[in-house]
Amino acid sequence: MHTPLCELFGIDHPIFGFSPSPPVVAAISNAGGMGVLGVAAMTPEGVDEALSWIEDQVGERPYGVDVIMPALTAETAAVDTEQLAAELRARIPNENREFVDDLMDRFALEPIPDDNMTPGGMLTHLAARSQLDTVLQHSPAFLVNALGTLPADIIETCRQRGIRTGSLAGKAKHAVAHRDAGIDVVISTSYEAAGHTGDIAGMVLHAEIANAVAPLPVLASGAMATGRQAAAAIALGAQGVWAGSAWLTSDEWIGRPPPTAMFPGWTDAKQAYLDATSSDTVRTRWATGKPARLLRTPWSDAWEASDSPGYLPMPLQGALVTEAQRRMGHWNRSDIGFMPAGQVIGMLNEIKPAGRIIAEMVREYDEVVASLANTTTGPR
Amino acid sequence: MHTPLCELFGIDHPIFGFSPSPPVVAAISNAGGMGVLGVAAMTPEGVDEALSWIEDQVGERPYGVDVIMPALTAETAAVDTEQLAAELRARIPNENREFVDDLMDRFALEPIPDDNMTPGGMLTHLAARSQLDTVLQHSPAFLVNALGTLPADIIETCRQRGIRTGSLAGKAKHAVAHRDAGIDVVISTSYEAAGHTGDIAGMVLHAEIANAVAPLPVLASGAMATGRQAAAAIALGAQGVWAGSAWLTSDEWIGRPPPTAMFPGWTDAKQAYLDATSSDTVRTRWATGKPARLLRTPWSDAWEASDSPGYLPMPLQGALVTEAQRRMGHWNRSDIGFMPAGQVIGMLNEIKPAGRIIAEMVREYDEVVASLANTTTGPR
Repeated sequence: MHTPLCELFGIDHPIFGFSPSPPVVAAISNAGGMGVLGVAAMTPEGVDEALSWIEDQVGERPYGVDVIMPALTAETAAVDTEQLAAELRARIPNENREFVDDLMDRFALEPIPDDNMTPGGMLTHLAARSQLDTVLQHSPAFLVNALGTLPADIIETCRQRGIRTGSLAGKAKHAVAHRDAGIDVVISTSYEAAGHTGDIAGMVLHAEIANAVAPLPVLASGAMATGRQAAAAIALGAQGVWAGSAWLTSDEWIGRPPPTAMFPGWTDAKQAYLDATSSDTVRTRWATGKPARLLRTPWSDAWEASDSPGYLPMPLQGALVTEAQRRMGHWNRSDIGFMPAGQVIGMLNEIKPAGRIIAEMVREYDEVVASLANTTTGPR
Repeated sequence: MHTPLCELFGIDHPIFGFSPSPPVVAAISNAGGMGVLGVAAMTPEGVDEALSWIEDQVGERPYGVDVIMPALTAETAAVDTEQLAAELRARIPNENREFVDDLMDRFALEPIPDDNMTPGGMLTHLAARSQLDTVLQHSPAFLVNALGTLPADIIETCRQRGIRTGSLAGKAKHAVAHRDAGIDVVISTSYEAAGHTGDIAGMVLHAEIANAVAPLPVLASGAMATGRQAAAAIALGAQGVWAGSAWLTSDEWIGRPPPTAMFPGWTDAKQAYLDATSSDTVRTRWATGKPARLLRTPWSDAWEASDSPGYLPMPLQGALVTEAQRRMGHWNRSDIGFMPAGQVIGMLNEIKPAGRIIAEMVREYDEVVASLANTTTGPR
């Protein structure tokens, strides 16, 4: 598996692997792909620690960073981060607060003992800015925004420093906006993908986006866990794949102690991922306010029940559930917690090292492409 | 584009084209694919007329038939068709009847003048049986049930007559049940497809089903409108494609007068299909009680509004809206009517003959497969 993206990034295979787990990211880059660290949930100090650790692991090999950076609006521009947080929290209706308090009771989510952390959990432009300031003190090869186009000043800084930029898109018109803003690579993120997704399936979306922005390179995101799926993506017009769920059942994901405390993980989460079928995920707005694909749980079902007040927009919904999310983490409640997973999770039934996942994907890709040569028109 | 399915069916290309329109079906078979006529909405007399016409058009070339045949239950087995229809209609709650009456007022769906037809519209086992009795007086090469496995007696009859059988599946476990019942070909029908669909995207579903039933042949259904998408499907493990939306913008669809009156069509429907984007479809239960992907309209939105009573199970929901559907047809209301469309409808922006659609799909398939050969691992 090899496309022109390999030369652009100096990698062996056009396999971009997203993970919030530094050991996974390092393993992917060391296996000839491009590991991309998701830093949205990290403090700036955590980002610094994680990137230093990754750079030690990968040496000269490239790695990337993924932020969740909403656009800066007039409403959110003029105040400092703490003031903004307080103002946004004040806008959460009582009905929604009471519903979450009731849910925490119903699911026995006790307060964390001796807790003196300030809850964060709001995905705002300014929060992402403070993460980015730290990222830019390091040397990533690729900087990706999972939520919209990167701001012009960041794109310009990256261009000067030789950092390639990427943005996720769930519709062709968003991909065109990314291209017009100067983004280098579009990540076409389809309905079946883990985390924030639109509702257009990859079989349509990847082709639409590849057509819309050609010759700009496109990575296909959504179900990219096997060589067959990678071959399908390249057939649709992508130049590479952006894989996320594939690493949830890797050795490196939680299985080894992470280098920092900022990503505690759940000790039994990997078993839940191994057990899940392709019907066990749901697109839900409970965690951030925007639709994200997660493992379906009694907690996500509760948000769809008749007594639910519904969802608040980003970033309010995230702020509303921050305390619940922290308690889920503390009490090891993977049975109800935030567990991003794409529909391909049903095909991931074995724990393997990330490097072997990549090697198998590449081998299957090459085999599938070779077998397709027997399916063209002409005499048998 | 050529796979072992071509030899199994005696066709040039493994492109199976579903349509309720006889001219489309004939054109597909005459272009080297396999046209498959959807007869669910037809009377037995209409089925007879349509199949005779198709057989005249295609000569020795094979064609198929698609029915919607729910399983026979104890509840629906013991009564005759008219008695069953009356009993089922009596189970429709008044609240739902009143909602539909209000909707017909709101959307100005006047009664049909001088109307003396008995409304049908219920998808029941016995209704499909009466269609099948007529089908089996003809010589289809392929008999498909769009809703579950065909009954054992039908499978046996087909085997004796050399008719291959197929069933649609939206989950791997359904595909395995079809195989175990003796079905010859599984049609893997994904989230993005037109008409009745599950919620698993093709990038996952086709691979899961191909793995689950191998070596039984699988057709990929969902977004199969271009050679790129066909190549993706074969890469995922399918042996052919089942295309539906692709023909909605064909010359033959409505564009020529159908040979019978049983499929009146809407004169401006093709323009709605040409204009639709991949975001303009919705999976909705309003038409039959099971989720089906249609063009989104003010009518489908009304069923999701806060004053909607929700949906009844199949076959009650279909019976509930039969009169509304007939009026939509009579008054040429494609703006609110039942317009099946997959998400790929956004890529269909030009009216072409069905034969050219197939020729272009085959040529693009061959080109894409040839270009993939440059993407395998190894020195450039």
